[in-house]
This record gives sequence, C-alpha cells and structure tokens, in this order.
Amino acid sequence: MAIKAYAAQSATSPMAPFSIERRAVGPKDIKIDILYCGVCHSDLHTVRGEWPGMLFPSVPGHEIVGRVVEVGNAVAKAKPGDLVGVGCMVDSCRTCISCDDGLEQYCECGFIATYNGNVFGGSENTYGGYSEDIVVDEHFVLKISHKEEDLAAVAPLLCAGITTWSPLRHWKVGPGQKVGVVGLGGLGHMGVKLAAALGAHVVVFTTSPSKVEDAKKLGAHDVVISRDPEAMAAHAGSFDFILNTVAASHDLDAFLVLLKRDGTMTLVGVPSTPHPSPNIANLIFRRRSLAGSLIGSIAETQEMLDFCAEHGITSEIEMIRMQDIEPAFARMLKSDVKYRFVIDMQTLKAA
Amino acid sequence: MAIKAYAAQSATSPMAPFSIERRAVGPKDIKIDILYCGVCHSDLHTVRGEWPGMLFPSVPGHEIVGRVVEVGNAVAKAKPGDLVGVGCMVDSCRTCISCDDGLEQYCECGFIATYNGNVFGGSENTYGGYSEDIVVDEHFVLKISHKEEDLAAVAPLLCAGITTWSPLRHWKVGPGQKVGVVGLGGLGHMGVKLAAALGAHVVVFTTSPSKVEDAKKLGAHDVVISRDPEAMAAHAGSFDFILNTVAASHDLDAFLVLLKRDGTMTLVGVPSTPHPSPNIANLIFRRRSLAGSLIGSIAETQEMLDFCAEHGITSEIEMIRMQDIEPAFARMLKSDVKYRFVIDMQTLKAA
Repeated sequence: MAIKAYAAQSATSPMAPFSIERRAVGPKDIKIDILYCGVCHSDLHTVRGEWPGMLFPSVPGHEIVGRVVEVGNAVAKAKPGDLVGVGCMVDSCRTCISCDDGLEQYCECGFIATYNGNVFGGSENTYGGYSEDIVVDEHFVLKISHKEEDLAAVAPLLCAGITTWSPLRHWKVGPGQKVGVVGLGGLGHMGVKLAAALGAHVVVFTTSPSKVEDAKKLGAHDVVISRDPEAMAAHAGSFDFILNTVAASHDLDAFLVLLKRDGTMTLVGVPSTPHPSPNIANLIFRRRSLAGSLIGSIAETQEMLDFCAEHGITSEIEMIRMQDIEPAFARMLKSDVKYRFVIDMQTLKAA
Repeated sequence: MAIKAYAAQSATSPMAPFSIERRAVGPKDIKIDILYCGVCHSDLHTVRGEWPGMLFPSVPGHEIVGRVVEVGNAVAKAKPGDLVGVGCMVDSCRTCISCDDGLEQYCECGFIATYNGNVFGGSENTYGGYSEDIVVDEHFVLKISHKEEDLAAVAPLLCAGITTWSPLRHWKVGPGQKVGVVGLGGLGHMGVKLAAALGAHVVVFTTSPSKVEDAKKLGAHDVVISRDPEAMAAHAGSFDFILNTVAASHDLDAFLVLLKRDGTMTLVGVPSTPHPSPNIANLIFRRRSLAGSLIGSIAETQEMLDFCAEHGITSEIEMIRMQDIEPAFARMLKSDVKYRFVIDMQTLKAA
C-alpha cells in the first residue's frame, strides 16, 4: 500500500512529495506510525549526494519516533499503542563478532542503514523517516518511556543522543572527571546534557561567544572560546576525555594538548576535507589517544533512552512542517538552529 | 675528578674526546663504571641539533650498562660489584601525579633526561653514557640479572626494549592476540621479540623484502611487505594492536585499516615532517584508536629486564669502538645495522 513520503529524486533535486511502499509486517516486524522525525545533517549530506554511494530516490530521516500500529505474531518487545523509536539502523547480519558482542553499529558485514541501504554498499535502498510509517524488525525498535508530550524532543536522541552517549559510556565518563565537548550543534548540545547528567564536570568549546550562556543553560560548567589561545592554555593537560562533535576540518592539536596523560579525544564526525595532520608528539608525551566512535548499539540506545526518561532529558528542538524541509536545510547549513529541527509528521499526512 | 667522554661541541662538530666531571656520590647515589652503551637514533638527533632545545657540548648515550663501584650510605638497591643499567631518565620531580602513579616518563614537570638535561627545558645539561662512569640516584638505576657475558646485548633494552615493552604491556598484549610491529629497526626488532615472548601472534610490516627471514628468526609468525597492497589487504580488520616504530612520515591509514574494531595503533616515534593526516573514518567506523607512548617507567623497565633475563632475551647488536661512533652514525642513517650498535667502553678507557 502506497504511503506518503518526502524524497530527493537526485543530488540536485529539492525534497518533494513522493510515494513509497513498506513491506508487509513479518513475524518479527513492528509497523510504526511516524509522529515526529528529527533532521540530522546526514540527511542533507545524503540527499545532496555529498557522500559516495548515495542511492536515489532518497527518503532520509533516522531520528524516528511514533506509535506502534501493528506487530508480527512473534514480536515480544512492543504492542500496538506503544511509543517507540527507530534510529540509524534497521538491520545487521546478527552473526558476526560485532553483532554477537551486541555492537550492531560495527557489524562486520555492514549494518543496514535506516535510509540509503547498506552504508558499506551492496544492499538495496531503504527509505527513512520522512514518511508516514515504517516497518522494522523488533530488534532495531527502541522503547520510549518519556512522557508523550515530550515525544518530538525525544526524536533527536535516536541519532544525536546515542552518537554522544555511546562514546561517553565506552570511555567511562562519570563523576570526578573533567570532560570537554567540542562544538555546540545538534550532537554537541546532547553531549553536554548527557555528560553533565553522568556527573562529569563539563567544559564546552565553541568558536561562538554567543553560545556561552546557552551552553551553561544546557548544563556546561564552563565554556571556552576555542579561538582564544590564552583561554585554551589555561586548560592544558587537564581533561580526562574530550568528545569532539565538529566534523569540519580543524586543528586537533589545540584540543589534544588539553588532555591529561592517558586521556582520549574521540571524534564522531568525518570531515569532508582532512583535519591538519595531528602532531604525534602530543600523543606520545602524554600517552594520549585519538579515537573515533560511530552512533551506538541498540542496547546502548535503549539504555540512553531509559536514562534520559529517568533524568527528564530531551533534545532542544524547533518544530517544522515537512513542507519546510528545504528552508530548514538552508538554515542548518548556516548553523541557524537551536539545536535540532524536528518534523511534525502530521503536516505530511494532512497534506 | 675529570673522566673521559665523547662529545659533540656543536651541531656541526663531529664526536670527539671530551673531559667531564661527575658529581660526588650523595647518600642515595650509585656510581656506575660504564661497560657498554647502546647507540640510539636519539643520540644522533641530539648531537646534530635536529631537535629544538639541544644543549652543547653534548655527551649522548642512554642505553647504559655497567658495574656499581660506589654507593651512598642510604642506598638499598645495589652494592659495589652489582651489574646495573641506566636508561633515558636520571631524575623526575617525584611529587606530581604521574610520578606518584609510578610513571616517571610522564612527569608533569618534565623528567630529567640522561643527556640533554630536562627534555622540557629549564634544567642544566646532563651528560650521558658515552663516558667512563655516571652517578645516578638509585631510583633511576635498574638491576640486571642477565648473565654477565650478555651484558653488551642488554644495553639496548634500556631504551629500545622499554620503549616497545611499555606499550605492549599498557595495551595488554598477550596470548590469543594478533599484534603488528611496523618497522624492523632497533625498536622494531625488540618489539617483535617481546610481543612474541608475551605470547602474541606477531606480524612484522617492513618495506624491505630482505628483512623477511630475519624477522622470522626474531620471532615473527608472519611478515608483510607493506608496499604490497594485496598482502596488506589480506590482513584488513584483523589486528588487536599495532606497534608502529617508524618515525619517518608515512601513511598511517594503511595500518589503521588493519585493526579490528576497538583496536589501537600506538606510535613511539615523532616524525620530523608530519604523517599524512589520517582518515578519521578509519577511526570512527571501527572505534579504533591512534595513540602514542613514551619510553616506559622505572618499574616497567625493571619488569622488562627481569622478563628478558628469565626468557633469555637480549638485543641483536654489533659492537663498535668509541672511536668509530661517526662511521656508526653514518651507517645508522642508512639503516645499515642489525639491529643496534653498542659501544665497548673499554675502547674509551684504554684510549
């Protein structure tokens, strides 16, 4: 049965109405009426064909929240009426060592992305959350225990939330630690909220003096303007962990030198042009590490959603209509969003 | 009392005889008659002034082994006649968090190097092992339990040995693990011996087909010619840990992609020109880390020396006369040494 969606027909076409079909609900599938979908920068990279291997037509959206409308006869995780979410993945091989370890995002065969099929190529295309509904295997469906009125602001947790939560947990961020968050966009603002809720002393690094007050409201204990060499120098060698959410090419050394001995800076974004090559001496002389992290596992995502529900954490959002996605993309390019656009899917259904 | 040494008077002067004085033996000091001293590439960088902040005259040498000839009245660690060693450090602040943690090499104040004073500047010059004797605080003196006839081949353990041992231990290399060693020079050949003795499956990466047989004799289970893309591709995503001993600028991505998920590549050398900037996607998509490591602590050095004595491990060396240090430096520049020059200090004393 055809449903409404929004798609780009090519890398040069604007987003426009499009009709797609979802598969029939299988024994382990959950069909979800999509209520809200967050707008991630990956959506824009994908529909503009800025990454290799992008498939068209493209229906983006991987910050999906909604209500269960139908479940297969072998589904145990949810029942019709439940509030659920879907993030960046809708399947993985389930047999490799990473899947066995419960780390589907590192599936050795390549997980199946919620849109644009298999991120490592080879699979047919998949259509994401800019649509009326979606059918997903229950393993990749997350339960949401937030209050229903918070649902729109929960959507960005499915990508921006988990992408920052996973490294904070993997590198064991907690009380007594000094943690930096570089960049205060969609990811960074979640990193601040989550690191603070985990009990760390959180310092935000931003190039924008205008974001200082906002960062503090989000939970940052301190804010450093990263273009101010003296302010940076005052923090030399003092951080246990730095979460770097800035994908644009920038000087990594400016942050590496702020780490303590044995500290790690983890990047979650791939720059389109390389960062200047880091100075290896900054790694060697304090046994520091430069690492990367990709979204997070299903188990971690559930853990994060439960933690956020318990601590009353959601994303800061600006709601938009589906029809306004192109102006929203344009504003996103100018970083003119605090801090995530979320599409009200009623605007698609009612159109 | 003046003793004989070999020094460079400036960055452009060849090594030549020089007279130095050692301090009187204090309560915690050990005076060591130097029997052998290894020749590290750092010696050459220092006497040629290739690093910033080099002090002249310069007496290099930080792979020192010898016999105790005098001890202060508060010394407990050794007595006259004992075989001992001194590595890259002769002092540190002893009060900072890294010293408290028993990691003197990361002393927050900067450890005092065996030659060229304080590596972070600020201290007076120190003179290294290209000399008849040395006076060192007992905390920085290592006990040697190898057989006396192995003593010359023990000298390189004090730098090349510990610089590879420390990261192998810190990143918990052991049985069941696949470990790469990049480069088969002074450091690399020790990395191979130590990783193999720790029980790992060891693969050597070298650009020189002529080193394949040698690598296997040293304990490597496999050897890959790193210029052969097919041979490299066969190992994609399979390494737990890679110890990269190559300081010359090279493509780090070629090795990063060989790491498993959560694998780490640790560099122990600072290139004089930067490596090409690593592709951050190679870190993110497998949660890999790029790290650095600096020599090793005194406790780790003692552990390594004891382990090597127990397992009959020494360095592969070529003995030279003190007077032949310049030709040895010239050969080192051409990598024409298997795998470490060691100076027989009798040749200095007898001159």
